[in-house]
Amino acid sequence: MTTSANQDNYPYQNQPTWSKSEKAIARTAFDAALGRELHELIQETKRMASQIRQFSDLWDLEHHLTRRRKEIDRKYDYRYSRLTHVLGRLLYEKRLSEQELGGLREDKLKSIRSFAKFLVEDVA
Amino acid sequence: MTTSANQDNYPYQNQPTWSKSEKAIARTAFDAALGRELHELIQETKRMASQIRQFSDLWDLEHHLTRRRKEIDRKYDYRYSRLTHVLGRLLYEKRLSEQELGGLREDKLKSIRSFAKFLVEDVA
Repeated sequence: MTTSANQDNYPYQNQPTWSKSEKAIARTAFDAALGRELHELIQETKRMASQIRQFSDLWDLEHHLTRRRKEIDRKYDYRYSRLTHVLGRLLYEKRLSEQELGGLREDKLKSIRSFAKFLVEDVA
Repeated sequence: MTTSANQDNYPYQNQPTWSKSEKAIARTAFDAALGRELHELIQETKRMASQIRQFSDLWDLEHHLTRRRKEIDRKYDYRYSRLTHVLGRLLYEKRLSEQELGGLREDKLKSIRSFAKFLVEDVA
């Protein structure tokens, strides 16, 4: 284990510090994206339920809800050590706009954009 | 381990044999009750989904479907060794009428009614 003055400012490697105002911006953007995704799932659930014709459609709906709940739980992880990746993914999925991140420091925006770009290329 | 001529007819204790026609009657009654219960659940699911207002209602619906699926899986156990209890429970829950069991031998009807009666008294 090594120690240095630098590690006092950055207790975990590659983990930027978030100012109070940045935390507020991130929280608002995060909550807005989560709210939109859940709202979408509500609409989807109402549509799937209204189209249930056979018994197997019931269990398809149940499994869909379970899968989406787990995905959403995994995706919306509000830990500062994860936040640039989380916001990067939401940007990539177009669940968040760059405007909503306005006010974050440039180093964070760069990390967020860079992870979004990585995901684009990963899929391509 | 003991053997006897009697055990050849009744390989498991207290397990009546089911004739071909009795099996057909039991299967029809069983499938009809299951179909009605699933149909009920479809209606209930459509109603619950149409009334979703908040995010927590989504997970309430998911948990309700999971719970009901497990209950139904447990309840509709079509093994001849279980069938008098299964049909007795369906009779007790009024998911099955005595008419639908017409044609079963009196020893089975007696076991089925007796288990239904036990459940009534168990709850009282």
